[in-house]
Amino acid sequence: MHAYWRAANYLSVGQIYLLGNPLLREPLKFAHIKPRLLGHWGTTPGLNFIYVHANRVIKQRKSPMIYITGPGHGGPGLVANTYLEGSYEEFYPHIDRTTAGMQRLFKQFSFPRGIPSHVAPETPGSMHEGGELGYSLSHAFGAAFDNPDQTVIAVVGDGEAETGPLAASWHSNKYLHPVNDGFVLPILHLNGYKIANPTLLSRISHEEISKMFEGFGYKPHFVELKTETFNEKDESFTEIHQKMASTMDLCMAELDAIRAKAQAEMDAGQPITRPRYPMIVMRTPKGWTGPKEIKGKKVEDYWRSHQVPFSDIDEENVHNLENWMKSYRPEELFNTDGSFKPELAELAPEGALRMGSNPVVHGQESKDLRMPDFRKYAVTFDKPGTVNVEATRVMGKFLRDVMDENEEQKNFRIFGPDETASNRWNDVFDVSGKTWFADYLEADKTNDFLAQDGRVMEILSEHTCQGWLEAYNLTGRHGFFSCYEAFIHVIDSMFNQHAKWLKTTRTINWRKPLPSLNYLLTSHVWRQDHNGFSHQDPGFLDHVINKRAEVIRVYLPADANTLLSVTDHVLRSRHYVNVVVAGKQPALQYLTMDQAITHCTKGLGIWDWASNDQDGEPDVVMACAGEVPTMEALAATDLLRQHFPDLKIRFVNVCDLMTLQPEKEHSHGLSDREFDALFTTDKPVMFAFHGYPWLIHRLTYRRNGHSNIHARGYIEEGSTSTPFDMVVVNKLDRFNLAIDVIDRVPVLQKIGAHVRQKLSDKLVEHGQYIAEHGDDMPEVKNWKWPY
Amino acid sequence: MHAYWRAANYLSVGQIYLLGNPLLREPLKFAHIKPRLLGHWGTTPGLNFIYVHANRVIKQRKSPMIYITGPGHGGPGLVANTYLEGSYEEFYPHIDRTTAGMQRLFKQFSFPRGIPSHVAPETPGSMHEGGELGYSLSHAFGAAFDNPDQTVIAVVGDGEAETGPLAASWHSNKYLHPVNDGFVLPILHLNGYKIANPTLLSRISHEEISKMFEGFGYKPHFVELKTETFNEKDESFTEIHQKMASTMDLCMAELDAIRAKAQAEMDAGQPITRPRYPMIVMRTPKGWTGPKEIKGKKVEDYWRSHQVPFSDIDEENVHNLENWMKSYRPEELFNTDGSFKPELAELAPEGALRMGSNPVVHGQESKDLRMPDFRKYAVTFDKPGTVNVEATRVMGKFLRDVMDENEEQKNFRIFGPDETASNRWNDVFDVSGKTWFADYLEADKTNDFLAQDGRVMEILSEHTCQGWLEAYNLTGRHGFFSCYEAFIHVIDSMFNQHAKWLKTTRTINWRKPLPSLNYLLTSHVWRQDHNGFSHQDPGFLDHVINKRAEVIRVYLPADANTLLSVTDHVLRSRHYVNVVVAGKQPALQYLTMDQAITHCTKGLGIWDWASNDQDGEPDVVMACAGEVPTMEALAATDLLRQHFPDLKIRFVNVCDLMTLQPEKEHSHGLSDREFDALFTTDKPVMFAFHGYPWLIHRLTYRRNGHSNIHARGYIEEGSTSTPFDMVVVNKLDRFNLAIDVIDRVPVLQKIGAHVRQKLSDKLVEHGQYIAEHGDDMPEVKNWKWPY
Repeated sequence: MHAYWRAANYLSVGQIYLLGNPLLREPLKFAHIKPRLLGHWGTTPGLNFIYVHANRVIKQRKSPMIYITGPGHGGPGLVANTYLEGSYEEFYPHIDRTTAGMQRLFKQFSFPRGIPSHVAPETPGSMHEGGELGYSLSHAFGAAFDNPDQTVIAVVGDGEAETGPLAASWHSNKYLHPVNDGFVLPILHLNGYKIANPTLLSRISHEEISKMFEGFGYKPHFVELKTETFNEKDESFTEIHQKMASTMDLCMAELDAIRAKAQAEMDAGQPITRPRYPMIVMRTPKGWTGPKEIKGKKVEDYWRSHQVPFSDIDEENVHNLENWMKSYRPEELFNTDGSFKPELAELAPEGALRMGSNPVVHGQESKDLRMPDFRKYAVTFDKPGTVNVEATRVMGKFLRDVMDENEEQKNFRIFGPDETASNRWNDVFDVSGKTWFADYLEADKTNDFLAQDGRVMEILSEHTCQGWLEAYNLTGRHGFFSCYEAFIHVIDSMFNQHAKWLKTTRTINWRKPLPSLNYLLTSHVWRQDHNGFSHQDPGFLDHVINKRAEVIRVYLPADANTLLSVTDHVLRSRHYVNVVVAGKQPALQYLTMDQAITHCTKGLGIWDWASNDQDGEPDVVMACAGEVPTMEALAATDLLRQHFPDLKIRFVNVCDLMTLQPEKEHSHGLSDREFDALFTTDKPVMFAFHGYPWLIHRLTYRRNGHSNIHARGYIEEGSTSTPFDMVVVNKLDRFNLAIDVIDRVPVLQKIGAHVRQKLSDKLVEHGQYIAEHGDDMPEVKNWKWPY
Repeated sequence: MHAYWRAANYLSVGQIYLLGNPLLREPLKFAHIKPRLLGHWGTTPGLNFIYVHANRVIKQRKSPMIYITGPGHGGPGLVANTYLEGSYEEFYPHIDRTTAGMQRLFKQFSFPRGIPSHVAPETPGSMHEGGELGYSLSHAFGAAFDNPDQTVIAVVGDGEAETGPLAASWHSNKYLHPVNDGFVLPILHLNGYKIANPTLLSRISHEEISKMFEGFGYKPHFVELKTETFNEKDESFTEIHQKMASTMDLCMAELDAIRAKAQAEMDAGQPITRPRYPMIVMRTPKGWTGPKEIKGKKVEDYWRSHQVPFSDIDEENVHNLENWMKSYRPEELFNTDGSFKPELAELAPEGALRMGSNPVVHGQESKDLRMPDFRKYAVTFDKPGTVNVEATRVMGKFLRDVMDENEEQKNFRIFGPDETASNRWNDVFDVSGKTWFADYLEADKTNDFLAQDGRVMEILSEHTCQGWLEAYNLTGRHGFFSCYEAFIHVIDSMFNQHAKWLKTTRTINWRKPLPSLNYLLTSHVWRQDHNGFSHQDPGFLDHVINKRAEVIRVYLPADANTLLSVTDHVLRSRHYVNVVVAGKQPALQYLTMDQAITHCTKGLGIWDWASNDQDGEPDVVMACAGEVPTMEALAATDLLRQHFPDLKIRFVNVCDLMTLQPEKEHSHGLSDREFDALFTTDKPVMFAFHGYPWLIHRLTYRRNGHSNIHARGYIEEGSTSTPFDMVVVNKLDRFNLAIDVIDRVPVLQKIGAHVRQKLSDKLVEHGQYIAEHGDDMPEVKNWKWPY
């Protein structure tokens, strides 16, 4: 095993440094070394060490493992190991285990148009981007949920351990079912340094580390290198190898015992006692087995080994590099044809048990959801715009049955930061509780819906919810994340990383299309009645559409039936990020189920029943997207029709926001011909939008009629107030919209002054009314579509 | 004290429920109750309890305290307490301590155009927005840095404690100087429930909680309510009051002892032993002293008390409310004129010692920075575009001297997640080390720049850095946060909250303008040589400019001298968020110091030396913003001039991005006349932009010449590759830019085909060259401005 590790380290150094002479069969020359030295050595030997030891456990137990590389910088290590075990050449046949293949392996690393320096989608066996730090542990748990056969090794770097998302995710152990879910074995790797600083967790006492993890509910085991005689004789490594091997065996035995005990408790009809899961704290030097010093400066066991330990390639350093690489004794590891010595190669697991070939992490075992017919949850009514319904509550009934139908497949969960009930998905609790392995109290028995086998995941950490769901998706399972709209920005950066993963994996044929990452954003900007300004931010949409169009979808269903249709669509879709914004408060309903399906299929369209331009060109287009703006746009249309019955108004509702973009920028985009047919090229378009109004301009600036579009939306105004006051202060209300139309339709500019004044007076009246009554005027509050 | 607490609770309930009859002198009727019941009761009594006990400590020690309300939902409690102590009426004279004042106090709460339901900028004594959860503790530490006279009480809710940012921030205790900084006393309030779930930390064992915080380096003290006989006799509260009082005294004594010991160690010239700071774990019921049950449903000590405990106001509940409020016995607390009984009022501290009147949290003690003359760091050169310099390294020298000049004032710190050196600010270490109270090793002695009295704050948590800096700003001090551009998205949501705070406080005259929140974003999208796709994201700019124009500034200085000028400007500014994007890699220098000052003052301008349209109208405008785009635009200009020497090219560089917006949208915006004079209304404009190209369209869509603007920028392409390859794959490179010009200038459309082909061939040649050499072509790499 030590030799196997040496081979992985050798190949790691080779990837960072060498262009040619991969086996060092000839003296190392300048020409063999890459012109640009890029990559990260520091974390790599530790990652290789763990990989080799995990291989031993897999062989012994004949049971698969998933390797999550928290220190994603260790790209060369994961590539080296998947190459040694033979996974790599199955995916990349030209990188075979020959001398030429090894040379190509070395050259491609961090080379233009080669492979990235980090653990990446291109790396076999990886399901965790080596980009931003903080998500390895929540990914590990997300992968383990409903995967009882898998053991997930989560290597957490001590740099990463300083981040907030990682710190929060230690508590995931209160959500893992010891029988129905897989095992997670966290390995905190204390290698002591970050880019240019020591790490916090390596500089507190052993007692503090120990207590911290016991406090988090783990049983920490320590594997610490006591000696400083590295890199000299193989014997000096014996102790640490033995310690690691025995500790891993101990952990696996503890995990087995935990499962057996839990199974026994289940069989006895008792609740499962929350286990104290094992974890490993592994303390080994940064840049382990690398050069101790270069030109008098400390490298091994110091931050200088973080990236490329030395990159000024003069004669002395060519010599240093050669000595370093030869210290692994490649001639003992590889045959002259570059192949791996068979007695070493056989230490690796075989077939799908190789961590680089685990089908679960390549999405290869993903099953579609069984879907109930969403039509049966349809809201019915006699006339549009007259019945109030909580749209997300209707969605919750649908999700309840999705949950139910997939109970057997165990491939659907919903996630949220303490908001499932607040967001009106409560009906889901009829079929599944909220996962909870922390303590229970008497009061829970009444109606807290806590359950050890629940499939609703709630923790007040958007980061942890997102991490769990991403990994659940990445391993082929489905989910929905409901979140307050303003606070979804908490995971902006995680979304970025996931969207990049989706984009990159589209071009990797051995990775299967993943279930889409689905968000419901509710408790949205317009209905923060209990909260106010700090809870108002619709900007996630702006953030999302910066990412590649081929993986992004944004839906703003205006009512419950369109929300149902959108929900069905996104749950069937694959390899997108679907953002659905919908309301949870009682709101008017507009489309029958059939109309909703047609509308959602097109993504946008004229609502005939709300338009009166049937016999020709409109004078104005009233457009809208989102629940509240749709109501205000309709009410404005009503006001205009009352005052100007001959004004021809075309009412357009947009459900799929991406239809507004040009078709060459987004596959959902309308052609210019279609766009012009809807919005005209020369008539004023009032656009009432859910989010920041400039987003509409950003999406439509290339359209012919763009200069006629006038968008209203959230302009960062608002406090704790009434629902209607919120739209008034942002000028998205019916009176302001109607005034905007009067100001823009030529004929109304001439004859509309009187009406305009009346509408302005209404705004004053509104101000007076709420100041006195603390509530909206009945005529506003009780407004219904009257036609 | 118990009576004082009852008064605070009484006023809290009154704010949530009552419109009239504030002292309940007449029987409660429907008409006395608000039509819309909004707010959060659950956390409030606990917050009031702590406030009252903190008052006692302040009186006793005659030493100021800052109260950070992690559970920001407890707005009514903080308003009630600052009202009782008399701070409130000093800021809001109409809310005086009379019956009418109390009625106004009740009415305004969560009332339209009144005050928000959360702890907010409007709340005296608050420096922490009661919006998103997770930042109370990092805010507490940020407020304490360099404020040795202050004791900061950080109330952390058990909901908030589940978030990642909060979890990470416990480690802030390794950064607090026991003598030079203030005290921080965290109080973890375990009230057991969130919106609809139990909290994790209230459902793990006492032993686990204890170990967790010992592991984090604290000495936890427990204040736990053992009895369930609340709300009956005052005597039943005696024990918990006594326990809280004695525990707070103990904590203060421990803090004093810690300071004395540290002072003694300093006096002896020894390093300070890291203290184990005290903290309090306070376990009291959610909705404490509220109704135990309403209509058979459990309320007190349950999640149902989270918001408004009951909001269906029927006769029974009117009666319940009256009973509840009367249980506080208002007649014993308030005189008939509504004034607070003097024997209770005198329990509060006086003057500036009242937590609602602490001048530090209102920014009233903020001093400007002493600024060295930035001109003396100027980079000099003979010709523009010929000398390479690392811009941020030059900035680092300036910051070093800013740090030095303000050493005495102690009001400047810099912050970063392990990136100060990587981002080339190392020179700062000449005058200040990196704060570090964790363990030291032998290796640190050489050059790690760790220091107990350092003013450079590094922790691998963007959240913690941001939280510290926000609070440092909020208490009137200055700072700079340097961050990898892609990962600043980690704090998107924190930025939102801070920008909202800045916007709101602009209109509150007793809050003084705060030092600006300054970001340097470097290691930017175009130079992720060691990393790749996961590290590429310039979207923070898009995110930032969604916020109100009056608090947002974005700068993209193209070289070191412009960066110096911008740095000087932002450090002198107040009440903005300044985002500065600059490069850390060697890059060409363009402007002399005088030119840079002029350029930065205008925000954008024609670079005459790079233009050849001096004698008339240009054929094309080559515009750019950002370090790398500026170089590519110049190189494209060079190519075009080589091939078409008679083509008139105007070269415009944008440093202050907000100049592009219309002047009515941003105070920095150019008038249309100015914009047209620079960009023309009819000539093609090629815009090479640092970020996502559509941002340029979003900013300029109202401009006359908008349809002629063609923007290039980052389009989510890239991997680990060469610097030039990065611009090529995103089509921002010189060859593509020159081709774009040929395709858009009418005369070149006719005569440019041959040159266009040559430029296309260059792109092919580039692809072949990097595939072979792994580096950029010398002609690209060594390009300099030749004129």
